[in-house]
Amino acid sequence: MNKPLLQIALDFWEIQDAILAVKKAKKYIDVIEVGTILIASQGKKAIKALAEEFPDKIIVADGKIADAGKIFGKMFFENKARFTTCICAAEIPTIKDTMEIAKTFSPLNEVQMEMTNNFTWDQVQKWKEINVPQVVWHRSRDLQASGVKWNQNDIDSVKKLANMGFKVTVTGGVTKEDIKLFKGIPIYIFIAGRTIYGAENPELAAKELKDEINKYW
Amino acid sequence: MNKPLLQIALDFWEIQDAILAVKKAKKYIDVIEVGTILIASQGKKAIKALAEEFPDKIIVADGKIADAGKIFGKMFFENKARFTTCICAAEIPTIKDTMEIAKTFSPLNEVQMEMTNNFTWDQVQKWKEINVPQVVWHRSRDLQASGVKWNQNDIDSVKKLANMGFKVTVTGGVTKEDIKLFKGIPIYIFIAGRTIYGAENPELAAKELKDEINKYW
Repeated sequence: MNKPLLQIALDFWEIQDAILAVKKAKKYIDVIEVGTILIASQGKKAIKALAEEFPDKIIVADGKIADAGKIFGKMFFENKARFTTCICAAEIPTIKDTMEIAKTFSPLNEVQMEMTNNFTWDQVQKWKEINVPQVVWHRSRDLQASGVKWNQNDIDSVKKLANMGFKVTVTGGVTKEDIKLFKGIPIYIFIAGRTIYGAENPELAAKELKDEINKYW
Repeated sequence: MNKPLLQIALDFWEIQDAILAVKKAKKYIDVIEVGTILIASQGKKAIKALAEEFPDKIIVADGKIADAGKIFGKMFFENKARFTTCICAAEIPTIKDTMEIAKTFSPLNEVQMEMTNNFTWDQVQKWKEINVPQVVWHRSRDLQASGVKWNQNDIDSVKKLANMGFKVTVTGGVTKEDIKLFKGIPIYIFIAGRTIYGAENPELAAKELKDEINKYW
């Protein structure tokens, strides 16, 4: 089983704050997420700035595309995203369009389906049928704030998605204590944001997440 | 029955192109939509630029918020949006947070639920229970491109939403021929984008939409 990658989510309003956050922990970071908040705040130039600052990292533009897949795909991939996300509410033509445009920029580019609780397994089956490579199991920050913790449904769903052959990202306030909850499942990426850059020592916080990953995978 | 408003959707990459598009037809425009594409391209400053250029129009920031309702709400409303959208996949705490922050900026601010085909009427019922004021019935541009036309399901669903008490926006390649399909239903807003700014005479194209609205409402 491959070791899960570690992704830092950058939900800043300013590009410089995002760059600074990565710099403090970059030794242990594999994937950099240009968060939806940062894109809405600064636009597509945020993607390019992060990609140029950290050319050896995988860049995810968390676009949560719901429509106009070709247009957003062009926008994000030409600004050097490697992955982008479609929101689970997106319709199949949108997802297909995004996947198609991704490959015109690089064979390594991929699309991730970002899941809220408002999805159906019928939809997931359709994603499988059109060969969506990745899904993001997402515990919303607003749910977290309302006190919802990781539960058996999260674990079971992530396992089911991995068994279906998706590369699965897990996100939503992942702490070092949470990593082991997913042991035995071939997780592709764990995302942490404030757990890393909100720590007194971001490099240490990222290392602790990596250590847990290395312990269980 | 109030007359439906006319909204221009601005899915440009550059702010100046968006401003120019409105200028050419502004006499007949009630609502200006800072499209998701424009926000992703230029960031929040696009909202402010349109709001300052056209202070007498209602500004919609089409954020398609899926999470972090308070953060996006603050970002969009402090940049002078009057309405913003949550995507139908958003969870209830996100929608509530967005509605709550909206009102801290102005009692006139409102949230719209942006609907793809991947929604359930159970979700709609929950939106009603938390007093979501507006919904957007959305025929995706990617579906349009794949040849899907307005159908009886669109009409029936829009009617059902209006009967539930939502202020309903209809969008997705609305042409002057489409307006009459919705007669008898208290539509709040019709959206047109390329139908207006893609026309040889954008002001005339907007007038023709308004004329149809005035004929049937």
